[in-house]
Amino acid sequence: MPVTAQSVEQLSINAIRFLAIDAVEKAKSGHPGLPMGAAPMAYVTWQQMHFNPKNPQWFNRDRFILSAGHGCMLHYALLHLTGFDSVTIDDIKNFRQWESKTPGHPENFVTAGVEVTTGPLGQGICNGVGLAIAEAHLAAKYNKPDAKLVDHYTYVLMGDGCNMEGISGEACSLAGHLGLGKLIALYDDNHISIDGSTDVAFTEDVSKRFEAYGWHVLHVPDGNQDLAGIAKAIEQAKAVTDKPTMIKVTTIIGYGSPNKSNSAGIHGAALGEAEIKLTRENLGWTHPPFEVPADVYSNMSAVDRGAADEAAWNKILADYVAKYPAEGQEFNAYLSGELPAGWADSLPKYTAADKGLASRQHSEKCLNALAPVVPQLIGGSADLTHSNLTELKCSGDFQKGAYSNRNIHFGVREHAMGAICNGILLHNSGLIPYCATFLVFADYMRGAIRLSALSEAGVIYVMTHDSIGLGEDGPTHQPVETVAAMRVIPNLLVIRPADGNETSGAYKVAMANRKRPTLLALSRQALVNLEKSSVDIVAKGAYVASDSEGTPELILIGTGSEVDLCIKAAEQLRTAGKKVRVVSMPCWELFDEQDAAYKESILPKAVTKRLSVEAGSTMGWHRFVGTEGDVIGIDTFGASAPGGVCLEKFGFTLDNVMSKAKALLG
Amino acid sequence: MPVTAQSVEQLSINAIRFLAIDAVEKAKSGHPGLPMGAAPMAYVTWQQMHFNPKNPQWFNRDRFILSAGHGCMLHYALLHLTGFDSVTIDDIKNFRQWESKTPGHPENFVTAGVEVTTGPLGQGICNGVGLAIAEAHLAAKYNKPDAKLVDHYTYVLMGDGCNMEGISGEACSLAGHLGLGKLIALYDDNHISIDGSTDVAFTEDVSKRFEAYGWHVLHVPDGNQDLAGIAKAIEQAKAVTDKPTMIKVTTIIGYGSPNKSNSAGIHGAALGEAEIKLTRENLGWTHPPFEVPADVYSNMSAVDRGAADEAAWNKILADYVAKYPAEGQEFNAYLSGELPAGWADSLPKYTAADKGLASRQHSEKCLNALAPVVPQLIGGSADLTHSNLTELKCSGDFQKGAYSNRNIHFGVREHAMGAICNGILLHNSGLIPYCATFLVFADYMRGAIRLSALSEAGVIYVMTHDSIGLGEDGPTHQPVETVAAMRVIPNLLVIRPADGNETSGAYKVAMANRKRPTLLALSRQALVNLEKSSVDIVAKGAYVASDSEGTPELILIGTGSEVDLCIKAAEQLRTAGKKVRVVSMPCWELFDEQDAAYKESILPKAVTKRLSVEAGSTMGWHRFVGTEGDVIGIDTFGASAPGGVCLEKFGFTLDNVMSKAKALLG
Repeated sequence: MPVTAQSVEQLSINAIRFLAIDAVEKAKSGHPGLPMGAAPMAYVTWQQMHFNPKNPQWFNRDRFILSAGHGCMLHYALLHLTGFDSVTIDDIKNFRQWESKTPGHPENFVTAGVEVTTGPLGQGICNGVGLAIAEAHLAAKYNKPDAKLVDHYTYVLMGDGCNMEGISGEACSLAGHLGLGKLIALYDDNHISIDGSTDVAFTEDVSKRFEAYGWHVLHVPDGNQDLAGIAKAIEQAKAVTDKPTMIKVTTIIGYGSPNKSNSAGIHGAALGEAEIKLTRENLGWTHPPFEVPADVYSNMSAVDRGAADEAAWNKILADYVAKYPAEGQEFNAYLSGELPAGWADSLPKYTAADKGLASRQHSEKCLNALAPVVPQLIGGSADLTHSNLTELKCSGDFQKGAYSNRNIHFGVREHAMGAICNGILLHNSGLIPYCATFLVFADYMRGAIRLSALSEAGVIYVMTHDSIGLGEDGPTHQPVETVAAMRVIPNLLVIRPADGNETSGAYKVAMANRKRPTLLALSRQALVNLEKSSVDIVAKGAYVASDSEGTPELILIGTGSEVDLCIKAAEQLRTAGKKVRVVSMPCWELFDEQDAAYKESILPKAVTKRLSVEAGSTMGWHRFVGTEGDVIGIDTFGASAPGGVCLEKFGFTLDNVMSKAKALLG
Repeated sequence: MPVTAQSVEQLSINAIRFLAIDAVEKAKSGHPGLPMGAAPMAYVTWQQMHFNPKNPQWFNRDRFILSAGHGCMLHYALLHLTGFDSVTIDDIKNFRQWESKTPGHPENFVTAGVEVTTGPLGQGICNGVGLAIAEAHLAAKYNKPDAKLVDHYTYVLMGDGCNMEGISGEACSLAGHLGLGKLIALYDDNHISIDGSTDVAFTEDVSKRFEAYGWHVLHVPDGNQDLAGIAKAIEQAKAVTDKPTMIKVTTIIGYGSPNKSNSAGIHGAALGEAEIKLTRENLGWTHPPFEVPADVYSNMSAVDRGAADEAAWNKILADYVAKYPAEGQEFNAYLSGELPAGWADSLPKYTAADKGLASRQHSEKCLNALAPVVPQLIGGSADLTHSNLTELKCSGDFQKGAYSNRNIHFGVREHAMGAICNGILLHNSGLIPYCATFLVFADYMRGAIRLSALSEAGVIYVMTHDSIGLGEDGPTHQPVETVAAMRVIPNLLVIRPADGNETSGAYKVAMANRKRPTLLALSRQALVNLEKSSVDIVAKGAYVASDSEGTPELILIGTGSEVDLCIKAAEQLRTAGKKVRVVSMPCWELFDEQDAAYKESILPKAVTKRLSVEAGSTMGWHRFVGTEGDVIGIDTFGASAPGGVCLEKFGFTLDNVMSKAKALLG
């Protein structure tokens, strides 16, 4: 289809395509197929979106997520052409290079204008559900009949891969249930995945499935040419306010490439010089690589309209603050990311005389102490509300028609739950999402937890039933390796509190870390309150929970439910004249970050006889106990029996700790 | 509904209910609600199923999976009442106790008659898809017009929880695509999940969703009473041979309990004495706990019909072997679990002179060397066939109408892929399933990998792109912590081969371990073939890959792509007069299992200066390098840049290894 005189629309769409083609060619790496096919729908979407390129974090912007993150050159091209300073033409030339602003998949922490980090398929659409939840919540909370303070759409571009991933089904089912009318998903229906035609593995009726979820579903049969059809579908989507909309846009992957379009070959590889030449001819694109006609820039620039949009909204906000000063102030506080003064004082404190509770119960108290003080706290459980104990009693359920409430029922959808919370947090409106399930099912949501950590989303993961101590449910439900497996994730704080104060301390840390997720490993069974624990000490990662006079001969290091066992063993050993210290180490990561002096004060180098006690994998403990130390842990799966029996059979007894300790003492 | 004279059907169904009620009550732990509501559908299903209680592993049995594994007392009751020796009445009295045959969730490795391990929701239905794939494959391969050697159904009972989990959507979409006509899923539609009514989170149209997947969908509106309706639906399901069938059976959870039925309260807690009394009255059940009327035993016993079924099939098999001796022999070999003689000899061997390839390429050679020799090998990739290099070139694609082929296109459905492979393996017909994706996406399938390990399913996980060395795709695609996170899973072999021989050795180990899954971490980039590697040495877990004369002063320990770097560093250090050993350690788990003498021969205790080099998390390495050693690894996320640049920037350079080594040598 050689073109001689092109409309500025067509030129703009081709500009997107060739920025992608040429950047991938220069890098000899990347995914040109999606940008080439999805450029028309992306162009139409962005032309009507509200955002301000000069203030990418303007609150009331429409959000755009490229769930098919491999097609990131599409996003970079859009950012560049609409006027974001974050992606210059040099950045595009630097695609996929060390420290570039244009990494191989979209990263929110690198490129302003990218809302979330995508690439692992299916995550982006779930993040989108999270953004839409955040919008719905804030709109319900702050909007007034005369003041639409919160009012934006969330657009998600997803591909066949996103639709095959189970996580997307989980989130879309929930989005349909919740009736999130301002969520609009564009499904790039190009019939090609990496293995070739989707006919080899994916022949379901996607539209019907979304209808089954309760979505409003539309179809644009010619997504390559029918710009008006795409625009109309977006309008229709906006007109339906009580359901999310999925617009299936049928396209040709790699549109414009005479020999490679509609094939898997163009999905994830550079076109090559010869094919690029043919594609230029075919699409009538006369410009050299990285040259964009001025007409395209002026057509696509959102700088002026974005500034106007933001100015108009700033007026709405100013009026709002004047008219509703209390809410206005609170809303501004949300946006600033600041927590209400004195929030941490609400966390409960305990003495050793206080009745011992399970740390999941302490967690419930923390959540409910924080909830009235910190209205930003929002979250829930994957259908284990009354096992995880995560209900905020001061609020109702977040449901269609009740979006101002803060208890979200995620359903049995752990993976989507994590990704939705990433979206809620990365709405960047001050909301603090938490989510909950049994610790062992962290495995189901690990893909999302990793992305919390990578994308600097300080989600709070409330994971209960943290060891074989949970008992009868047996090895499928007993985390053994889970805490260790979580500790290896960079930028994730894993905290396993030993009592009430440590649980409060864990929340204090978690709430204060908005760029770093925290995973709390909480017991099902009751724990004794320790003599020397405190709320503030948790921030140090480890402390001396019980000590002898002078230099200890032996250090017992425990976490969570095992600290008390260590203390009891130490007491017995002391009666036998031994000098024993007990270190409670709720968080490895925080302890590692302390200065050398503090570390030495807790674990003196000279004391080489050390024993770790944790009802879980021993992996990693040798770093703390050293070559001369020993470990008590579990490196096999658990078993079904009452929790106390399990703990006993697996060696978490005073006898066993004493015996290992004595062996070390010689 | 007090009943005076009950039919034996009704008595049998109530017997199931009260075994569940009374076992949970005695244990004060468990889930009575599902067994009480699903007893009718389970009863009807089992009355027409073909199996032999006295030979639970009889090949041609119909398979039954309780995907809603928490309702395991349903399964135990069925096993007991139909005549399995594995579950006696004493075993039922011992429900959820230490070393009982009746653990808190169904465990195939504990209880004969349980096909797979369920409990983590959604896994069972995926396992069922795997069983159905195995059946379809073997039927296509061995059945003759005059001999239906392979001919059984796979029944799965799933609940709302299973249907909310994304993994079930993945597998059911694939099952619909593949048209697995002998898969019959019974959906216990009881409208209750742990958080209460499913109205709080799950209001989608499940039937419509399954229709969208291409399933045959039926509905039994009164699953509590309409036994004929359930039976008819199963017949209709069997009549449709080119689609899997989902039968939605609407029930009342905890049916029969006057005050607790139809509530979340009966899902996962004992009814309590008073309510049990009322339930007995209500259902007209006059028998004390654990007493089953003889009528019920004789009505439900499958001992005679099972023996007859097996005898009839044994005759079919004998005739088959007589008529088709080659296929018959092969089929029997499959069932015996034995691999063809000399299979391991097919694995390629290399010398240092051979051109270096990526270990994913070596893996491709292994798979294609094994495939013609080991027809049991079947598997594929989650839409990364030509990146993972997992195609068996001697076979076509496993598709509807071509079930005898062995290349399965799983689609972008990692989690279901793992669970489906667990099902294929636990079909226990000798098939050896493998599956593949990028290593980082092991996170997406961790729930299934854990169950491979727990349920003793020796699936082979072919995970490529195993480090930051993959380059441009960036941190979302770069495993950093993944190998470490896999090493903590009990009973999983994690092998990261350094060259061609080690890759062959990894396959040799993996193929021989049918009760232990193996995860292969394979490079995207080319690796040098080592001087001292061999196929057989991999079974030892670690070996000396390069050495100096006499006792070394320093030991460098590497895995995978970093071993060659260690060797080069050692060579340079030796020119400076240092005695340096290099240990290649492809598999921690196997090395840990060697005797003390072997371990000492590789890592002599006296040599305390040790340096590990692995392009991944350092967690766990301190156990090998000790207090005086050091580690080179990556404890942050990676970055998007060409692979060589990433490796260099993160310190995987000769300079850095030399510098750390020199620091240790002092």
